[in-house]
Amino acid sequence: MKKIAFSVAITALFIISCKNKMQDVENQQPTANRPEYALAIHGGAGALRRAAMSPEKEVEYRAALDSALNIGENILRNGGSALDAVEQTIVFLENSPLFNAGRGAVFTHDGKNELDASIMDGATQNAGAIGGVTTVKNPIRLARAVMEQSPHVFLSGRGAEQFAAERSLELVDPAWFYTEERWEVLQKLLREEKEKTGKQGHLKLSQHRPSEPTADEKFGTVGCVALDKNGHLAAGTSTGGMTNKRWNRIGDAPVIGAGTYASDDACAVSCTGHGEFFIRYAVAHDVWALMAYKGLALAEAADFVVNKKLVEKGGEGGLIAVDKDGNIAMPFNSEGMYRGFAKPGARGVAIYKE
Amino acid sequence: MKKIAFSVAITALFIISCKNKMQDVENQQPTANRPEYALAIHGGAGALRRAAMSPEKEVEYRAALDSALNIGENILRNGGSALDAVEQTIVFLENSPLFNAGRGAVFTHDGKNELDASIMDGATQNAGAIGGVTTVKNPIRLARAVMEQSPHVFLSGRGAEQFAAERSLELVDPAWFYTEERWEVLQKLLREEKEKTGKQGHLKLSQHRPSEPTADEKFGTVGCVALDKNGHLAAGTSTGGMTNKRWNRIGDAPVIGAGTYASDDACAVSCTGHGEFFIRYAVAHDVWALMAYKGLALAEAADFVVNKKLVEKGGEGGLIAVDKDGNIAMPFNSEGMYRGFAKPGARGVAIYKE
Repeated sequence: MKKIAFSVAITALFIISCKNKMQDVENQQPTANRPEYALAIHGGAGALRRAAMSPEKEVEYRAALDSALNIGENILRNGGSALDAVEQTIVFLENSPLFNAGRGAVFTHDGKNELDASIMDGATQNAGAIGGVTTVKNPIRLARAVMEQSPHVFLSGRGAEQFAAERSLELVDPAWFYTEERWEVLQKLLREEKEKTGKQGHLKLSQHRPSEPTADEKFGTVGCVALDKNGHLAAGTSTGGMTNKRWNRIGDAPVIGAGTYASDDACAVSCTGHGEFFIRYAVAHDVWALMAYKGLALAEAADFVVNKKLVEKGGEGGLIAVDKDGNIAMPFNSEGMYRGFAKPGARGVAIYKE
Repeated sequence: MKKIAFSVAITALFIISCKNKMQDVENQQPTANRPEYALAIHGGAGALRRAAMSPEKEVEYRAALDSALNIGENILRNGGSALDAVEQTIVFLENSPLFNAGRGAVFTHDGKNELDASIMDGATQNAGAIGGVTTVKNPIRLARAVMEQSPHVFLSGRGAEQFAAERSLELVDPAWFYTEERWEVLQKLLREEKEKTGKQGHLKLSQHRPSEPTADEKFGTVGCVALDKNGHLAAGTSTGGMTNKRWNRIGDAPVIGAGTYASDDACAVSCTGHGEFFIRYAVAHDVWALMAYKGLALAEAADFVVNKKLVEKGGEGGLIAVDKDGNIAMPFNSEGMYRGFAKPGARGVAIYKE
C-alpha cells in the first residue's frame, strides 16, 4: 500500500513536469535528426469526461501509461525491434483492467467479451490480425503468431482460438475478462436501448452515435507504434470493441489499413475511436497514403484525417503515429485520448488536450 | 437442350465480335464525355490455366459473365442505382456454380464453405461486410443489409448468420454450397500438403504460394463495380476464399479498403487474388488514394498497384475499377481473370490477356 502511495506521488510529480513536453511533441516539426528510437502509445480515445475524472483516477491512468512506456522504451533503448516493443507494450495494456482491451474489455450485447487485435511489421509489411476471440489472454500475441506462423493474415472466432491453442498461447476462462465496471456500463446501455426502442437492439447507425456518458466505454482501445534503432517501424492495436456490440461485430482494430498500418517508407499508425468510421475511411492507410502520395508531413497527414475528414463525417476518435524520422503525432477529435510518447531525452503522458 | 446449344453458339459469335472492343477498353484514356452508366464484373483472377481450358468450358464461362452483365446493365440503363446493379449482378454470380462465391464456393481445410462478402456505396461511403458465414445463400445481400440495417460495418460468423435470420434473408443448408469439383480440389491439396509436411497444415506463407495447378481454385472471387446515371459509384465483392483455408481465415473480400472500396470523388474498386497480399497493401483503397492524392488516372493507378507493387511483392491477382467519369480498368497479373464490362454501345467479356 505504501509502495502504491509512493508511486502515485512520484507519478503526480512526473505529470506536472512533462505537461510542457507534451505540448512540444504535439506541435513538433519534422526533423532531419532521427532519434535513436521513438515510441507512442494510446489507451483509447474514449477518455472519461473530464468532469467525471477524479484526481485519483487520473493518477492511476497516467501511472499505467507511464509503466507501458517503460516497457517499450527499455526494449528500444537496448536495441530491440519495433515489433517486440509494440507487442510487449500492448501485452501490458491488455493485462491492465483500466483499458478496453484484454482484461478490461467491454461487454457485447450478449454479455461476452470478444477481442480484436492486429499487428503490422513496417519492414516486411507482414501483418497478423484476429477478430472475435473470447479465451485468448493476450490477443496481440495471437496476432503476431498469425503473422509469423500462419499463411494467413486474418483469423477469426473459434478458428483463431484453435490456432492459439495449437501454438500454446495462454488461454483463459472468459471470466478473466470480467470487470464489474464494464458490466455495469452494458446494463446501463441495455436499459437505455430498451427505453428508446421498446425492445433491445435494432438501432440504426444514426441512433447509435455516442451519447456523452458512455463514449468513454465505447471507444476504448489500446495501441502502440514504434521506430527502432534499425529504422524499422511497427504498429499494433488491441480492443474489446464497443460496449453492446452485436452479431459478432468486428471493429477497425483488426482491419489492416483501418485500425493499424505500418510501412518503413513512411509511418506506423494505430487508431482508436468509432471503428465503423475508421473502416469506411481506411484511416490508418489514409495517413500513410497522404505521406506517400501527397508528400504531407506526418503531423499534417494525421491532423487532416482526424480533425478534418473524420470530423466532417462524424467519426469520433484519434490515432497515434510515428514516422521514419521519429516524428510523433497523436491527434484526436474526442474529449480526450489516453496517450504517451517516449524518445531519448523526451517523454510524456496525457489524457485531455493540454 | 436446344436452347442451351443456341445460346452457346450466340455467345461464341459474341466472343469473336467483342475481342477487339475488350482491347480498346483496357487501353482507354480518360474522357470528358461521361457515359450514361458503366459496369464491370469479375469472376476471379484464378482463371483456369489456358492449357486446361476446353472450348466448351470457355463458352460456358463467357455466357455466365454475359448474363451477369445483362442483369447489371438492365438496372443501370433503366436508371437504377449503382448499388442495386452491384448487388443483383453479384447475386447472379453467387448463384452460379462456376465461380468461387456462394454456390460454387471452395472448401476450407475442414471441408466447409465459409463465405465472405462486402459492399460499399460511393455516395455515402457507407459499407457492409460479413466474414465466415456458412448458411446464407447470398452473402452480398447480407453485406448490404449490414450496411443499411445495422449500426455496424463488419459482422462475422454465427452472429452474422443470426443477423441474417432476423432480417429474413434466405438461409440454406450448408450442402447447398457443395460442388464435386471444388471438393476434389480440396482433397488434392490435402494430399499434397501431407506429402510436403508429413502432416496436414503448418505451412508458412512462403510455402503456401500458389502452385500452378490449383491457382484457379485458390483465388476465385466475384465482384462488380458500377457507375449509375446519377453519377454514383458502388463496389461489391463476394467469395468462398482460398481452398484449404484454416482457422476461420478471413480474406480481403470483406475487408473494406483491401478487397472493396468506393467513393464518388474518384472510383469504385473490387479485387480478386491472393487475399493476404491485398490486405497487407490495402489494395482497393490504394487505387483510390493514387487517384485522390497523386492525381493519377484510373488506368495508371490500377496498373501501378496490380502490375508493379503487387508483382514486386509476389501478390497474385487483379481488380476491376470504374471511375467517376465512367472509365474502366481491369488489370491482372495472373494468367487470367474472368471479367466483363458494359457501357452504352460497348461491351465485352474476356478470360485471358487478349
